[in-house]
Amino acid sequence: MKDDRILLAHGSGGKLSADLVRELFAPAFRNPALDRMDDSAVVTLPGHGDGVASGLVPDVVPVGTLGSSGMNPDATELPGRLAITTDSHVVKPLFFEGGDIGRLAVCGTVNDLAAVGATPLYLTAGFILEEGLPVETLRQVVASMKAAAEEAGVRIVAGDTKVVERGSADGLYITTSGVGLVPAGVDLSGANLRPGDVVLLSGFIGDHGIAVLSKREGLEFTAPVASDTAPLNGMARAMLEAAPHLRALRDPTRGGLATVLNEFAVQSGVAIQIQESEIPVQPAVQGACEMLGYDPLYMANEGKLVAVAPAEEAEACLAAMRGSRYGAEARIIGQVMEAPAGKVLMKTLIGGTRVVQMLMGEILPRIC
Amino acid sequence: MKDDRILLAHGSGGKLSADLVRELFAPAFRNPALDRMDDSAVVTLPGHGDGVASGLVPDVVPVGTLGSSGMNPDATELPGRLAITTDSHVVKPLFFEGGDIGRLAVCGTVNDLAAVGATPLYLTAGFILEEGLPVETLRQVVASMKAAAEEAGVRIVAGDTKVVERGSADGLYITTSGVGLVPAGVDLSGANLRPGDVVLLSGFIGDHGIAVLSKREGLEFTAPVASDTAPLNGMARAMLEAAPHLRALRDPTRGGLATVLNEFAVQSGVAIQIQESEIPVQPAVQGACEMLGYDPLYMANEGKLVAVAPAEEAEACLAAMRGSRYGAEARIIGQVMEAPAGKVLMKTLIGGTRVVQMLMGEILPRIC
Repeated sequence: MKDDRILLAHGSGGKLSADLVRELFAPAFRNPALDRMDDSAVVTLPGHGDGVASGLVPDVVPVGTLGSSGMNPDATELPGRLAITTDSHVVKPLFFEGGDIGRLAVCGTVNDLAAVGATPLYLTAGFILEEGLPVETLRQVVASMKAAAEEAGVRIVAGDTKVVERGSADGLYITTSGVGLVPAGVDLSGANLRPGDVVLLSGFIGDHGIAVLSKREGLEFTAPVASDTAPLNGMARAMLEAAPHLRALRDPTRGGLATVLNEFAVQSGVAIQIQESEIPVQPAVQGACEMLGYDPLYMANEGKLVAVAPAEEAEACLAAMRGSRYGAEARIIGQVMEAPAGKVLMKTLIGGTRVVQMLMGEILPRIC
Repeated sequence: MKDDRILLAHGSGGKLSADLVRELFAPAFRNPALDRMDDSAVVTLPGHGDGVASGLVPDVVPVGTLGSSGMNPDATELPGRLAITTDSHVVKPLFFEGGDIGRLAVCGTVNDLAAVGATPLYLTAGFILEEGLPVETLRQVVASMKAAAEEAGVRIVAGDTKVVERGSADGLYITTSGVGLVPAGVDLSGANLRPGDVVLLSGFIGDHGIAVLSKREGLEFTAPVASDTAPLNGMARAMLEAAPHLRALRDPTRGGLATVLNEFAVQSGVAIQIQESEIPVQPAVQGACEMLGYDPLYMANEGKLVAVAPAEEAEACLAAMRGSRYGAEARIIGQVMEAPAGKVLMKTLIGGTRVVQMLMGEILPRIC
């Protein structure tokens, strides 16, 4: 934190975001669930630990001691693990090809729960509205949230609305939080990778980033690029059924594929090697990136999963992805190696190997 | 929704906020947990209903069916009920006498969980930062959140940070969400009031509103008023132990005491009568309100509880409140009657009776 002011890049999802978390948030809030740095926290409920998330029970008076007034202490002690996550959404513009801030807010949180193998159950939504926002805009966003929640099979059970003066927000911001249930035996984490594992990707990268950028900047392409914003809990469930020893899942949003792979490599202390030839990029996205000077590896996605599976379950996992609604273009893109630990390498189309770093700086503020 | 633009009053916590929820959010997201309109949603987890929150299990594939690959379906089915809530915080200024946005964000969510009788366990925090915010400001806010979380006995297990351009936010906004456990037998709701019940209040009203307003407007009083921002889960637990048939709890934040009592009256279809002589207001707050033309009944609080208890448990409840850290000034302020249903009446100091309406319009934007 050498800079003494918050920069746009602190919200990039890349290097400066990670610095902020490591140097400011993590030391203050330190606890095992947060420290794992996965897409959702996995926690136990009082009364039952299970080895994976044990030690996370807060130092509160056990609820079973609340009193004898007709309460059954046993029924208050729940076994098992919950996944909990939150994401604020500030995408600009609010509506874009293939989605809007409402669909994004629901899918983003559903996908963070799915990424730890949880079944998403309940969502909350906190709205920060700018004075003067057309009510019809809010109505459209809410309708979109409703549709996405129905598709994902989750319920929005609590909400809050604040209004700030004109000029103190930009239309509307939505913070969604989610709670899901982690089935016994499921332990997905970016820290689980082992040499020999296989890296999979569920489809084309960069669609969301280019869709939002096009709309924001008024760029016209012959074939308009639609955001991939989608709930991925169905695909994640199918993958876990097919590959029960799946190591890790993550949705490559801000920071893109390159950043997720770097996070995995650092969390697990391994190297990851990917093949450029296997990374699926739509021609329109490739063209837009070349024109604008972006690398698809760093472009945001909102409907993709990166997975790491043990080699013996990789084909089954791939088949499950391809059989899912949003995984038709899934493929194996690389493998996990022992060294150089913490690094991501890419075999390029022209036969070389280069290091793929995590996102430095910020390329597209307010992409989600 | 006759107005076609969002007004500041849609975030007041009063009449227009209620209209927005009833006419826009509730129809879209309709489900039993949301429809109760209490401070937190109370939900069951798949596999076990308990009569109170039954029917809330989403229509998702039961997690127990995930597969036979070494997973134990039994351990995935958790009995019991969770409380889930969220609140966005946009208070201006960020720091004020007695608190700051960080302490507010933690306590607000802890108190919403406590208000349904839940033991708060886990919090998430979504930050929306304005480009250019001093990192030191964020550090102070985070330190304050850490201290409040420790006092409340909760852990902050997940977070997110977004940064928007200068002029697209006002310093920083924090959305906190919380998960807690509702002990068996506890059923607190604004819909539970019965004629003959007693209404209690945990202390002085209006402190938070006047503290924030003073700082924002640069008002100087001989005795500075400090915000009451505090975690109330300890007091709520003591009250439930003393009064196991407690009907309802709520923290009178935006909209103040008057709005909470009106919410209760409408939710339960009863009348509430309060005695003006019993409503505790600090002289400095009373003086500031008279000078500025505000009514303390509508001023925001962030460390108070309004409770409704059956008459036979009222004294025990009061004693528990007075024995708690933040309840020394607790008192009985009124009672529940059959008619006029949905109305709040106040016996005034001069011997008359007047109707106390819920907050109309907006008096103090960005108070929390």
